[in-house]
Amino acid sequence: MSDDLFMKIINREIPADIVYETDEVLAFRDIAPKAPTHILVIPKVHLRTVNDLESAHTELIGKLVLAATDLARQEGIAKEGYRLVMNCNPAGGQLVYHIHLHLLGGRQMRGLG
Amino acid sequence: MSDDLFMKIINREIPADIVYETDEVLAFRDIAPKAPTHILVIPKVHLRTVNDLESAHTELIGKLVLAATDLARQEGIAKEGYRLVMNCNPAGGQLVYHIHLHLLGGRQMRGLG
Repeated sequence: MSDDLFMKIINREIPADIVYETDEVLAFRDIAPKAPTHILVIPKVHLRTVNDLESAHTELIGKLVLAATDLARQEGIAKEGYRLVMNCNPAGGQLVYHIHLHLLGGRQMRGLG
Repeated sequence: MSDDLFMKIINREIPADIVYETDEVLAFRDIAPKAPTHILVIPKVHLRTVNDLESAHTELIGKLVLAATDLARQEGIAKEGYRLVMNCNPAGGQLVYHIHLHLLGGRQMRGLG
């Protein structure tokens, strides 16, 4: 876990532009945004990839998605549209090994990568 | 709802290559795949976009994600990696107005669209 950058953000060991927080979920702006709105929504519990999810995490993952839709409304991009992405492992394009949901919007999203 | 293509698949009014089904969730292969594995995971209840999700749907949405991770294992792409995508409204690239989670894998995913 020492290489888990996002756990350091949760623990306020490194700074981030935090936009949403509950007991279980944290969201902050991506430091290298790929769209005008690019927010990462993460669980506070350490889970490396979505492959590590078990049925006990079902509601937690639902909360990540619901938080993202709330944030889309806050950002004013809900009506025009946005994209939610979770990447798993290298072929999926995962770079940080703590589950994160990308909320991307403010421009036309293209293809599926 | 008459224009909801996916409800017609749920109701077996039009054919699809169905790979997973529970009381609440259905999954089938995309007819225009953008990757060697391209499966759509949908709720059986009619919900136009993720903007229509309410807190009562939290567990349902979690089940979509968990189903997708199970399918990734079945497809043999869990270890190398894969991508999960939900598009909302035109700027997000949503084409069918019934919530669907894309499971994409079997090749290197690029960028975030």
